[in-house]
Amino acid sequence: MDRPARIAILGASGYTGAELVRLIATHPGMEVAALTADRKAGMDMAEVFPHLRHLDLPKLCRISDVDFSGIDLAFCALPHATSQEVIRDLPRDLKTVDLSADFRLRDPAVYAEWYGHEHLAPALQPEAVYGLTEYYRDEIARARLVACTGCNSATGLLGLLPVVKAGVVDLDEIIIDLATGVSGAGRAPKEGTLHTEVSEGFHAYNIERHRHTAEFDQEFSLAAGRDVTVTFTPHLLPQNRGILATIYVKGAPEEIHKVLAEAYADEPFIVVLPYGEAPSTRHVRGSNFCHIGVVRDRRDGRARIFSALDNLTKGSSGQAVQNANLMLGLPETQGLMMAPLFP
Amino acid sequence: MDRPARIAILGASGYTGAELVRLIATHPGMEVAALTADRKAGMDMAEVFPHLRHLDLPKLCRISDVDFSGIDLAFCALPHATSQEVIRDLPRDLKTVDLSADFRLRDPAVYAEWYGHEHLAPALQPEAVYGLTEYYRDEIARARLVACTGCNSATGLLGLLPVVKAGVVDLDEIIIDLATGVSGAGRAPKEGTLHTEVSEGFHAYNIERHRHTAEFDQEFSLAAGRDVTVTFTPHLLPQNRGILATIYVKGAPEEIHKVLAEAYADEPFIVVLPYGEAPSTRHVRGSNFCHIGVVRDRRDGRARIFSALDNLTKGSSGQAVQNANLMLGLPETQGLMMAPLFP
Amino acid sequence: MDRPARIAILGASGYTGAELVRLIATHPGMEVAALTADRKAGMDMAEVFPHLRHLDLPKLCRISDVDFSGIDLAFCALPHATSQEVIRDLPRDLKTVDLSADFRLRDPAVYAEWYGHEHLAPALQPEAVYGLTEYYRDEIARARLVACTGCNSATGLLGLLPVVKAGVVDLDEIIIDLATGVSGAGRAPKEGTLHTEVSEGFHAYNIERHRHTAEFDQEFSLAAGRDVTVTFTPHLLPQNRGILATIYVKGAPEEIHKVLAEAYADEPFIVVLPYGEAPSTRHVRGSNFCHIGVVRDRRDGRARIFSALDNLTKGSSGQAVQNANLMLGLPETQGLMMAPLFP
Amino acid sequence: MDRPARIAILGASGYTGAELVRLIATHPGMEVAALTADRKAGMDMAEVFPHLRHLDLPKLCRISDVDFSGIDLAFCALPHATSQEVIRDLPRDLKTVDLSADFRLRDPAVYAEWYGHEHLAPALQPEAVYGLTEYYRDEIARARLVACTGCNSATGLLGLLPVVKAGVVDLDEIIIDLATGVSGAGRAPKEGTLHTEVSEGFHAYNIERHRHTAEFDQEFSLAAGRDVTVTFTPHLLPQNRGILATIYVKGAPEEIHKVLAEAYADEPFIVVLPYGEAPSTRHVRGSNFCHIGVVRDRRDGRARIFSALDNLTKGSSGQAVQNANLMLGLPETQGLMMAPLFP
Repeated sequence: MDRPARIAILGASGYTGAELVRLIATHPGMEVAALTADRKAGMDMAEVFPHLRHLDLPKLCRISDVDFSGIDLAFCALPHATSQEVIRDLPRDLKTVDLSADFRLRDPAVYAEWYGHEHLAPALQPEAVYGLTEYYRDEIARARLVACTGCNSATGLLGLLPVVKAGVVDLDEIIIDLATGVSGAGRAPKEGTLHTEVSEGFHAYNIERHRHTAEFDQEFSLAAGRDVTVTFTPHLLPQNRGILATIYVKGAPEEIHKVLAEAYADEPFIVVLPYGEAPSTRHVRGSNFCHIGVVRDRRDGRARIFSALDNLTKGSSGQAVQNANLMLGLPETQGLMMAPLFP
Repeated sequence: MDRPARIAILGASGYTGAELVRLIATHPGMEVAALTADRKAGMDMAEVFPHLRHLDLPKLCRISDVDFSGIDLAFCALPHATSQEVIRDLPRDLKTVDLSADFRLRDPAVYAEWYGHEHLAPALQPEAVYGLTEYYRDEIARARLVACTGCNSATGLLGLLPVVKAGVVDLDEIIIDLATGVSGAGRAPKEGTLHTEVSEGFHAYNIERHRHTAEFDQEFSLAAGRDVTVTFTPHLLPQNRGILATIYVKGAPEEIHKVLAEAYADEPFIVVLPYGEAPSTRHVRGSNFCHIGVVRDRRDGRARIFSALDNLTKGSSGQAVQNANLMLGLPETQGLMMAPLFP
Repeated sequence: MDRPARIAILGASGYTGAELVRLIATHPGMEVAALTADRKAGMDMAEVFPHLRHLDLPKLCRISDVDFSGIDLAFCALPHATSQEVIRDLPRDLKTVDLSADFRLRDPAVYAEWYGHEHLAPALQPEAVYGLTEYYRDEIARARLVACTGCNSATGLLGLLPVVKAGVVDLDEIIIDLATGVSGAGRAPKEGTLHTEVSEGFHAYNIERHRHTAEFDQEFSLAAGRDVTVTFTPHLLPQNRGILATIYVKGAPEEIHKVLAEAYADEPFIVVLPYGEAPSTRHVRGSNFCHIGVVRDRRDGRARIFSALDNLTKGSSGQAVQNANLMLGLPETQGLMMAPLFP
Repeated sequence: MDRPARIAILGASGYTGAELVRLIATHPGMEVAALTADRKAGMDMAEVFPHLRHLDLPKLCRISDVDFSGIDLAFCALPHATSQEVIRDLPRDLKTVDLSADFRLRDPAVYAEWYGHEHLAPALQPEAVYGLTEYYRDEIARARLVACTGCNSATGLLGLLPVVKAGVVDLDEIIIDLATGVSGAGRAPKEGTLHTEVSEGFHAYNIERHRHTAEFDQEFSLAAGRDVTVTFTPHLLPQNRGILATIYVKGAPEEIHKVLAEAYADEPFIVVLPYGEAPSTRHVRGSNFCHIGVVRDRRDGRARIFSALDNLTKGSSGQAVQNANLMLGLPETQGLMMAPLFP
């Protein structure tokens, strides 16, 4: 294309929508052509997100008011379940990147089990490509519909997939302990995400059953060629952005580090730290990078793998732009090489 | 005694010293008789800690200026290594509660291994009683010298000791993943504990070797009657107070819960939550309570135990007062029943 | 009374309700006899506020289910407007401390102007005593109904009333710039008080018109014996507790300090700092203290007065207990002398 | 130039140094050619600032090891007082942007008065151009040495200069109340900037005398053509980035708004909000924008002006890059149009 791709963002009034606008604002290959938010239709984006006030953006409108004939690609940043209904009714040839959970699970029965209802667009499900760019790059480049990963899933998968594939850890003894910033819970007001409840607090949540677990099952089993079931405990951090997974495995730590370092040697966004170092969420904030570290355990044959990323960027909107770059034939890293914001 | 016990706090210019003053301020059985801080001798406590400004406190002085003949009990809130030198030179019959690491390890060889130097008061080490009140209540009541536990150690030990003793978990498969507030690092200025470095950040620290691990080894092995070696990963939280341990064990979750509920049924400060619930650090802030929860894993025969406490209160100064109550013949809970401060 | 006063807390599911329970939990002269929360009736307080889990409390019930014959005093921690309806229907001889704004303004016309509707219990308004304890101590001790001050109002009034009375500042040139923690906004979920919106942010709110201004008008005018109109700008802080007022006045700074120091010399909860020092919210957190400081301006004849308190304690629930102590004939400071929680 | 300008950053181990690297990393017209940090010479930048780990940067070296013949422009991000010594010894034709306070004050006597010692490079002082880009654009474009403003100064000056120039406010009645994030205090460990001391706290600092006041005096007096002395009270916020100035003036609020809106109509980085709206620091975080709002007071003839920016970006390193763009003949906004990071 000799002009920037024209982008629609469906669900622009949430945090992932705003993050998409932030990223596209300085992306040379994309421009925002439509922004939807059904309940806020008619409003200026500056009213909803004053930090985007300097940009010349279209007003928020209803999805039904978008003329998709002029759109090259749509990001769908809508809530789970709503997404599948909306995407079902979009033009069938519209390139679409979905940030919700709706098309992540390949098996409709598994979807129904984890999400508690039948899928509303089962015909589209086989078409959807799982959006973990580093692992599905070629399929994504050819895809019409890409389902971005869960932010927790991305963190765990990036830290583990190479070692699961290489068979250098005991597949029955994987524990993913994870802590995530509160922006992952979205902008809808809830008691549990008030400043008063989050600040100076730390606790596990959705402990018995977190839906991102289904993505772990799907991808680890696929990678291993057998069923893999992991233990997963997410915690809520008193901070806005960032996920750190602390992964307990049985295997030789130096070998694990070697496998990871080799697997990601050419990846532009995955940084494997020197052996023995561990990452921090503050060092990836606002960026599309994922930092991975491996540290030995005091007991031989055991290791800790650490994986850190920004849930709103590499964990969702940055990953979405990375996938959109591929789908549009743009350089994969275009618009995404900004350094983390620290402090 | 028909008068409040006269208390000296050695090392009153640090956070655990200030927390002791906070607790004693409303304690009917104790009064502050001496406050030391060698480098700040001569200053008013109000200059060092303006939040204590309303109290009528003695000026800070040097340890050498304290007349210990009028002191009933001394809290020693000094840095590690300094403590042993100071305590060595205190009157041999002075009741002493040490908040440092110096007398926690029974075996001088183990101390030397973990702390990197020979102990300076080895003659006192056999005399010291480990200050985990719920487990050494009787010895503490009779003790002259009590060594309070590490704050991380207390959190892990309280969550695990009953099940280790009862033998209801696999002793070779214990993983203690822990996150702690930054006040545990003390008040000495360090780059790593600046607001800019801690806020909006989460990372593991001292991963290969954290000294509190030695306390786990000592106490779990003693409880189990065999060597127990655990995996331990501490993380630093962007909050001031609070520790949450997420403990991964192999065992039957309901049995584990039952063992814990029974073990702590009569404990005034240990609250075992209903089965399936998990605690938060924000619900114990500023209090002497420890909240413990057990949640099943998706895999049979595995469980997560959660243990939460305030590192400055139940994790150090509150625990110290609890021990001092016993040593002085006061009710164990006296001065310590304040409710947590939330939000 | 030879037994603790039996207390009802109406509206116990909000933050001021929880703070009342926290304070009463260790108050020797009060016990919680009834807790109401209409929408959460039937629940245990531990479900609503897990930090109070260690207490033996009555279940939450509806107001209509409380037998007020056994109640010595009721705290009303309900939302504005609801309070007046509820209090109108309480037994006419029940000692009542209202934490809402409903009975703070003496003139019903002023109330209607600031709150936008006619008062629903105008007959009770003349009876209500304004709850600024340090200024209405005798009336409060005799009162049946006390209307606690707004938290912002308390901060500004305590810093200014003595100098307004003494006439040592220009009454036409008072500016109250104020910053408050987010707990003042309550526990009802709102977008503006989410962690994501508050953390790392600072902004003014209700700038044109904040209702607490009406209390400034009323009390300053009364103190001065003439109409006094101040400028007032509240800001929202990225922290849970604490209010700091920075007050700009024209007057001689040392004289202003002297007037304040003398006015509060015997007050148990008001601490006037040495001349030239300024307070911090972190040094009053969780306590009933108010710290006041005076610093000169670089221009002669001008000064800054700083006033800091905890909005949930001295700013509302602590003040309420202080007033209740007086109404019940208990020592004014009983149950309120806890030191601030720092850090 | 047909190649990116080669940049040296002197003092790259502090926060403003890291912020410069962050900005230059995606700046098409600049590349980092040298990074100095005398005490950390020999280290990789990734060790000092792991968030910059993905960049291919020169190792930290001593200033004396830099070959300035290959450098097009140097940013000097050194501490006050050190800067003047270093800059004195740099090649006399090297374009230099100083981020310290050393060359901000035109009058050496004023410098000596506020900074307590004689200036060490008085010969260079007349040459230095004050770096407030919007006001000294032409001089900056021609300058050899530019002295970036203080971060607090920038915030106040941008909010006030147009109205001071236009004479629409009473010049004797200006009050600048300001709150700033903690990153402005730098990375050197100090007790006062520990997380434990800053979090959940708010207080005024340097109240009697803050050195940025001298910049107010200089620039306001110059703009007004007479001496202008303002009241200035800075506060420390429990957040990392962001400054909000709340400015109290006497004047007609709508006229003030009109003057500001017109003055900044064509400025790329200064956004004047609609009349009656106020900005928040969270909406400029990580960006080079300054948001300005005007709100009427309840008293006629008075107004509040609010000015918000990010202290590390528009307040220092972003401003520095903006100035460097002009000095190097690059488009003024190049590399600086990134949207704020929210949440």
